[in-house]
Amino acid sequence: MTATVVDDLRAELPQGRVLVDPDVVAPYRRDEAPRAEAGRPVCVVRPRTAVEVQQVVQACLRHHVPVVPRGAGTGLSGGANAVEGCVVLSTEHMTAIREIDAVERLAVVEPGVVNDALRAACAERGLWYPPDPASAPWSTIGGNVATNAGGLCCVKYGVTRDYVLGLQLVTGTGELVRIGRRTAKGVAGYDLTGLLVGSEGTLGVITEVTVRLRPARDPERTVAGYFPSLAAAGRAVAAVAEAGLTPSALELIDRHALVAVDAWKHMGLSAEADAVLLGRTDAPGDAGEREAEELLACFTGAGATWAASSTDDEEAEALFSARKLAHPALERLGQVLTEDVCVPRGAVPDMLARIEEIGRRHDVRIATVAHAGDGNLHPVFVVPTGDDDARHRAETAFEEVLDAALGLGGTVTGEHGIGLLKRAGLVRELPAPVLAVHVAIKQALDPHGILNPGKVIACAPRS
Amino acid sequence: MTATVVDDLRAELPQGRVLVDPDVVAPYRRDEAPRAEAGRPVCVVRPRTAVEVQQVVQACLRHHVPVVPRGAGTGLSGGANAVEGCVVLSTEHMTAIREIDAVERLAVVEPGVVNDALRAACAERGLWYPPDPASAPWSTIGGNVATNAGGLCCVKYGVTRDYVLGLQLVTGTGELVRIGRRTAKGVAGYDLTGLLVGSEGTLGVITEVTVRLRPARDPERTVAGYFPSLAAAGRAVAAVAEAGLTPSALELIDRHALVAVDAWKHMGLSAEADAVLLGRTDAPGDAGEREAEELLACFTGAGATWAASSTDDEEAEALFSARKLAHPALERLGQVLTEDVCVPRGAVPDMLARIEEIGRRHDVRIATVAHAGDGNLHPVFVVPTGDDDARHRAETAFEEVLDAALGLGGTVTGEHGIGLLKRAGLVRELPAPVLAVHVAIKQALDPHGILNPGKVIACAPRS
Repeated sequence: MTATVVDDLRAELPQGRVLVDPDVVAPYRRDEAPRAEAGRPVCVVRPRTAVEVQQVVQACLRHHVPVVPRGAGTGLSGGANAVEGCVVLSTEHMTAIREIDAVERLAVVEPGVVNDALRAACAERGLWYPPDPASAPWSTIGGNVATNAGGLCCVKYGVTRDYVLGLQLVTGTGELVRIGRRTAKGVAGYDLTGLLVGSEGTLGVITEVTVRLRPARDPERTVAGYFPSLAAAGRAVAAVAEAGLTPSALELIDRHALVAVDAWKHMGLSAEADAVLLGRTDAPGDAGEREAEELLACFTGAGATWAASSTDDEEAEALFSARKLAHPALERLGQVLTEDVCVPRGAVPDMLARIEEIGRRHDVRIATVAHAGDGNLHPVFVVPTGDDDARHRAETAFEEVLDAALGLGGTVTGEHGIGLLKRAGLVRELPAPVLAVHVAIKQALDPHGILNPGKVIACAPRS
Repeated sequence: MTATVVDDLRAELPQGRVLVDPDVVAPYRRDEAPRAEAGRPVCVVRPRTAVEVQQVVQACLRHHVPVVPRGAGTGLSGGANAVEGCVVLSTEHMTAIREIDAVERLAVVEPGVVNDALRAACAERGLWYPPDPASAPWSTIGGNVATNAGGLCCVKYGVTRDYVLGLQLVTGTGELVRIGRRTAKGVAGYDLTGLLVGSEGTLGVITEVTVRLRPARDPERTVAGYFPSLAAAGRAVAAVAEAGLTPSALELIDRHALVAVDAWKHMGLSAEADAVLLGRTDAPGDAGEREAEELLACFTGAGATWAASSTDDEEAEALFSARKLAHPALERLGQVLTEDVCVPRGAVPDMLARIEEIGRRHDVRIATVAHAGDGNLHPVFVVPTGDDDARHRAETAFEEVLDAALGLGGTVTGEHGIGLLKRAGLVRELPAPVLAVHVAIKQALDPHGILNPGKVIACAPRS
């Protein structure tokens, strides 16, 4: 009998790296996307070094078996879901922070390092790693890089791609290579690093990440506003942009999300407002004071019924907790499908109106929280558990929301990625010749089609 | 007789688009890289629309003729140099600024728009396009995008790639497509936009650029320091990084450059200092005052013999004029070869010492100006006109400087690009499997090998 990929991995890797027990393997089958299909892996491998990752990829190449890289599994698009018969490669044991350098302002980490762990280690050195997805307490830098994760501070500081200087990875042909750099600038060759970021494991398996850091920033001031309508809140967002302000966060919570938070935590928000905007500024010194005042003026000018600013950490945290509680509060009400469209800032009020209309028409409860300053909206579709009809209506509404975003010049995914859930959306968003370029790149970098196949874009291997 | 590509272009394009007179064509043969070879084009085409660009590429595809895109020709690596028998595609007549949007903070421009023209148009709207290469008065946005141009403000605000949201381009298969987006965030598919930026016309011909803008910033304060040695200036650069400061510029001028400026403009700088550091801060309000003071403290702490800060525009401009005059001052002394290595910030003193040593050993006058805060050094090799032996020594020294930068963990090009001059350097910098990925991408996006062939990376077309 010929050896299988599992036989080879067991023979080649140190003891304990390969998991095959179905009960142990089961939790590795999917990420947090509720609707996406998931296959059964032949095993889960937990390598501890880059060379072990290379051995895994080379074994998969020899056996023509797909390899699905996986961080913490907090993804929302099915990007880390197992493919039938694959090897799941978990980075959970690659958690070393190898280096934090204050002069070069960079850190070098293994892919399994948790985002918050890196941020804490940087803070000890007076440094800051900005990308802050909501999953930061659990999600890994490798997963953040694979999905080009966003977060609250993107509105001022950009997304994960803006902080990735270099990568070590195993290519689709099984080579262990470094791309990118440690220098502040560099234009030697194509931007392979940027191409790998957000490629969801389909172009290479990341074994090390070099990230750019910033100096620690000044404490933030928070500005909150209660609005009598989504339209008024939308006007405030546009006013902030027009005034030339650059808040370090600008978040929106709609009435449905406020009601769900109140039902759970009795904060009384939904009695006060139809929409809440939460802004932050981290401009230093008197500039921060001035920016907070200007944010307030934008809020009140747009019709806020109440608005106030605060430098008190506790008060500010209480205000932001409603934003953080929205998702778990909605999960109490049933199964949730979380959307992730992004539209031009100026189209936020229109998009919010379209979401309301779609929800009404399909009788689906849609609560929206949003990185409003970026135009990145997360409508959350709530489906009462076991209600198949409601689930079907929600799925239809979900696709209509995608089309509405595209119609407003937006994208089907602002920060969660394509994975499995948005593949049809990607095909609606990109014209055929651009999809063809995606296929050409996928085939160029993964000629044998073993790297997380079927994710992002469906395509046949070249050989 | 079968029609040539020139016949086709003349037949298909409106009158006046195609230039063939050798005297008219001659200035389009090369950019500003003195050592790079340049072929003879069969014609120069100056399209006025994206569709005309597409017609040019399609004609080149039919005739298997290379197409070499060209902006203002201010490049320093030969990237825009004609390939023998090619069509040079000049964007000089595509100069429309289509849109500047304050709410979305973006501009949409044709590729031939001059950098300073875009910056001026943005300033009128209270907006700012940061990338500021020294060539900004002449170089085009298309050329800046093709080379991922840097400049002075990169040290705080990043390079051209950080500002390109989307592109319209003609692909290697002659399709006119849009990639990227107009939204603040978006992760739908691979980052083709980032891949195209810095690809020097080898992966597509850019017909429109959507750039991200910032609100206009506060006026800058300038901090200047005179240092008794390069080592002391290098220590000051490291001290600035360690202190958590983020100046909006941090430039260095070495003794040889100061002497050349003095010989021309009699500023008396070289009598005062062996090296001058020029810092700027644009932090708002009292934070700017504080940062200027902290920059001063770093300068004096590192051994500056004189240091002062200024908010006086005239005084500050006088200080920075020495930096701007360095290159033309050196050009008065002979032919200049401009290097563009980038090393980790902490390695700047070592790299400066290596450059001095290499200059001494090969008896070559090397003056260095540097974006010191980025570790991006521009050693300028001065060769007396007509001195072939000196020229040969300078070329040897040039290659040794590249190796020295690589030895310190740096790159052969920080912001000028590979073009023709740095192709050998790229091969020394990147390991074979990474070069192979470059070739695979080039062949995937330019399967017929007609897009600026031979630049960046030498590779045979796939078909």
